[in-house]
Amino acid sequence: MPEFRKDPIVGHWVIISKERSQRGSDWIIKPHYEKINGFCPFCEGNEDKTPPEIYALRSNDSKKDGPGWKIRIVPNKYPALLHTGKVSPEHNGIFHKLNGIGAHEVFVETPDHAAKFTDFPPRHIFDILKAFQYRILHLKQDRRLKYVIIFKNEGFAAGASLEHSHSQLIGTPIVPKAIKEKLEGFRKYFSRHKTCVFCDLIKRERLEKTRVVFESKHFTALAPFASRFPFESWILPINHIANYENMEDDYYFDLAINLKDVLKKIKMGLNDPAYNLILHSCPFTHSKNIDFHWHIEIIPKISSTAGFEWGSGIHINPVPPEAAAEWLREN
Amino acid sequence: MPEFRKDPIVGHWVIISKERSQRGSDWIIKPHYEKINGFCPFCEGNEDKTPPEIYALRSNDSKKDGPGWKIRIVPNKYPALLHTGKVSPEHNGIFHKLNGIGAHEVFVETPDHAAKFTDFPPRHIFDILKAFQYRILHLKQDRRLKYVIIFKNEGFAAGASLEHSHSQLIGTPIVPKAIKEKLEGFRKYFSRHKTCVFCDLIKRERLEKTRVVFESKHFTALAPFASRFPFESWILPINHIANYENMEDDYYFDLAINLKDVLKKIKMGLNDPAYNLILHSCPFTHSKNIDFHWHIEIIPKISSTAGFEWGSGIHINPVPPEAAAEWLREN
Repeated sequence: MPEFRKDPIVGHWVIISKERSQRGSDWIIKPHYEKINGFCPFCEGNEDKTPPEIYALRSNDSKKDGPGWKIRIVPNKYPALLHTGKVSPEHNGIFHKLNGIGAHEVFVETPDHAAKFTDFPPRHIFDILKAFQYRILHLKQDRRLKYVIIFKNEGFAAGASLEHSHSQLIGTPIVPKAIKEKLEGFRKYFSRHKTCVFCDLIKRERLEKTRVVFESKHFTALAPFASRFPFESWILPINHIANYENMEDDYYFDLAINLKDVLKKIKMGLNDPAYNLILHSCPFTHSKNIDFHWHIEIIPKISSTAGFEWGSGIHINPVPPEAAAEWLREN
Repeated sequence: MPEFRKDPIVGHWVIISKERSQRGSDWIIKPHYEKINGFCPFCEGNEDKTPPEIYALRSNDSKKDGPGWKIRIVPNKYPALLHTGKVSPEHNGIFHKLNGIGAHEVFVETPDHAAKFTDFPPRHIFDILKAFQYRILHLKQDRRLKYVIIFKNEGFAAGASLEHSHSQLIGTPIVPKAIKEKLEGFRKYFSRHKTCVFCDLIKRERLEKTRVVFESKHFTALAPFASRFPFESWILPINHIANYENMEDDYYFDLAINLKDVLKKIKMGLNDPAYNLILHSCPFTHSKNIDFHWHIEIIPKISSTAGFEWGSGIHINPVPPEAAAEWLREN
């Protein structure tokens, strides 16, 4: 059983999940994708090599866990957290832990092994974004979960262990410390200014324009003022929306266009780098619309995180966000 | 001029340092060390390829910035922060910044390109550790600096751009958010328990023994309870000492033995991985002995940090620290 453990000094959580590694030799870093004899469990026809599907967008005449799908959601075969059981905290002096209950799901974004996110038609990206919404709405009803995050690791350098295009969702019975700090940032700013910090930020960025990468009808893509990574990009709804899952279809379609464009700019401008994409929606524990402004973070993997960054938490970024935005705008 | 920028929501700082990259092509990730035609600026005989030395441990008949040294401290040629000027904050609505004043120094640990830290005799490691002490004591007198961190990136995967064994020091005019949180953790624990959280932790770990990796006379090496990374190891003085720089020579010699042993165990047990080493001493802003308990963190680079970790701040660690400590003890 995986477990959550709390750092006794600073209070951040980690997940200790030995289910994800078995023996000494597993600890040696793998220099490439695990594709044993060219076999991929996410390809059409290999549906029996994943756990049974949670949901699939498939043709009417196709069968569950068979071919004929466009998008497929399955539990992660090597889950960081398990979906069954009761959450039970354990305190033992300075050491606090929690059994590893939660959700860990995979969105297989296409049946085609070679197709990449930037190749998908906007309508297909819309379907993926709607699948995210569907799962968040569903998991919100699970009283054990307080928070859900959706992310995409594209490329080996970004931590992907399979090449086939996919995203993941992890739901946790705690609100992570970093997310609590975000919520607290929103709360503090609101109590001082009676408005949302991201709404103010977006207003200002749209006036200044220097850090804007791309705009669609409902969304703006920015290189954030305090970018931790070169070419870090955020996509935010221009109007205040706390929850990703509470939007009209029109918004998801516009987001598909924006996301595809920004990822294409990153691909063209930076020589097709690996990247992480993170979708931040409001935690389930917060229901006031003003608590959060949902957003996407995209982190191209073109720099490495070294001792100074891990030790101090301060990232050294050699590319000013103004230069990054200009470079991406022109690509 | 580099600059510090503050994230307007969460409040962490970043350093935007375009001095460290010049043009578009620099943004593409480099797949190997930069060793142009086999040339290394840290090798003996190439002293004129670094900025003039700050200090060197050298033979009596040798000359400054010439050969004949054992350890050499020089300013970083591509500094993240500059050492001259006045710190001046700038506030502009929600955006706060600070000019990039600080210190960025390099400790060239050996004249020999091929020698690694684990090859050095303990007496030589002692000299390196004393060089760290010397620089901290010196920079403590610079009123502009509030904090100094020393770190070592060993191997390309750990962010090293040069192969030749070296460590670095960065001094900042702010206390990083992550370090403020550590100090706050110590303060809170002390106000509740009238003792230091690390002192209590060390007592308990030494009783339980399951997470102890190695012990010398004055130091214990542990796999921390909430390890973020596989085989993460901490080295701590067994008795309470807040400041690295305030120790008797006996302690530095014992630390040299402990550090060499732990790094050798990591090298042998994990197939010579890249690693980051971070030395955390008490920030200059804190003078009460109870505020901090200095320590070293070692992070072998055998896993990658992906979307979930960057987004939630929760690390998934597939190796329980108890298994890691056992594995390292036996190596």
